[in-house]
Amino acid sequence: MPMQPVPLDKASRLLNHGPTVLVGSAHGGRVNVMAAAWAMPLDFDPPKIAVVIDKATLTRELVDASGVLSVCVPCVAQADLTRAVGGESGKDHPDKLQRCGVAWEPGPQTGTPLVQGAIAWMECRVLPATVHVAGPHDLILAEVVSAWADERVFSRGRWHFETGPDALRSLHHVAGGVFYAAGAAIQTQHPL
Amino acid sequence: MPMQPVPLDKASRLLNHGPTVLVGSAHGGRVNVMAAAWAMPLDFDPPKIAVVIDKATLTRELVDASGVLSVCVPCVAQADLTRAVGGESGKDHPDKLQRCGVAWEPGPQTGTPLVQGAIAWMECRVLPATVHVAGPHDLILAEVVSAWADERVFSRGRWHFETGPDALRSLHHVAGGVFYAAGAAIQTQHPL
Repeated sequence: MPMQPVPLDKASRLLNHGPTVLVGSAHGGRVNVMAAAWAMPLDFDPPKIAVVIDKATLTRELVDASGVLSVCVPCVAQADLTRAVGGESGKDHPDKLQRCGVAWEPGPQTGTPLVQGAIAWMECRVLPATVHVAGPHDLILAEVVSAWADERVFSRGRWHFETGPDALRSLHHVAGGVFYAAGAAIQTQHPL
Repeated sequence: MPMQPVPLDKASRLLNHGPTVLVGSAHGGRVNVMAAAWAMPLDFDPPKIAVVIDKATLTRELVDASGVLSVCVPCVAQADLTRAVGGESGKDHPDKLQRCGVAWEPGPQTGTPLVQGAIAWMECRVLPATVHVAGPHDLILAEVVSAWADERVFSRGRWHFETGPDALRSLHHVAGGVFYAAGAAIQTQHPL
């Protein structure tokens, strides 16, 4: 089983390099997954994240109703899946997850979908402060309450794509269904 | 001159793939630049961004006082510079920009520093809504009022790193001074 728990004080590292994510939601028997390029860490410990979720989406409806969401980091092997869940609405297609080939399991704390094949999973609870920004800006702030990552590419608190299969690199959406994979590792020197 | 104006309705594309950025600030004759990995687009048109800026930083002091900031996208050739401005405080070193080798020009609308050698520049004005989130979350929301990008790697409204020099690829901070460069372009197919 490649998914291993990530200590919560290292959860911000899962999004630190700016990957496109899958946002999962569940409420009243309905479950959805969408893609979101606009997501980032917000705090270290307790870990928090910020993600933009359009108020027209089913995801937003479910997140607003349940107060919970999952954030998964998809990999190169899931590029078509990521585009598919980003391009279809669960409002138009109640069977969206089947149509898009999304297999998932419910998160133990929230019941939100953790997508099989993703390289990281987080379960999150929406912060009360969100009311200030969700209205005008569609910005959801949430606390990460559990996290896992694929030990083949994440270990000792950070990503190590350079030592794993290229199919497990993260995706970074450019435009129109084109992504950049996480590329060469650059080790810097502090010049001073 | 490689920096060409980016239409404002395409400015969100500059951050869509999750690069680490340089945040510039200027007020009362003081100028600073810091690195920030926690930045993302917030809206398309007018373009808005969200960025986390710790309240302990000189940058935050200057941004709070002036209401403006610049956001530049550094490239692989600037990896050491990016680490340097992320590791030193302008509070400790009033000559930080010289020490870190940062050459810049003032943005025409805001006077904030546009860093030479970066592959994108944005001038931004802090949104009034920020008061709701800056306090508890160090989250600054801002409208992009002007944008430029290096035409060697950004054209027709999107990044094209695959056709430019590798030294101009964007940086994505992992941890501890290690970055991933934007890597292979992945063209998806909608499978449905």
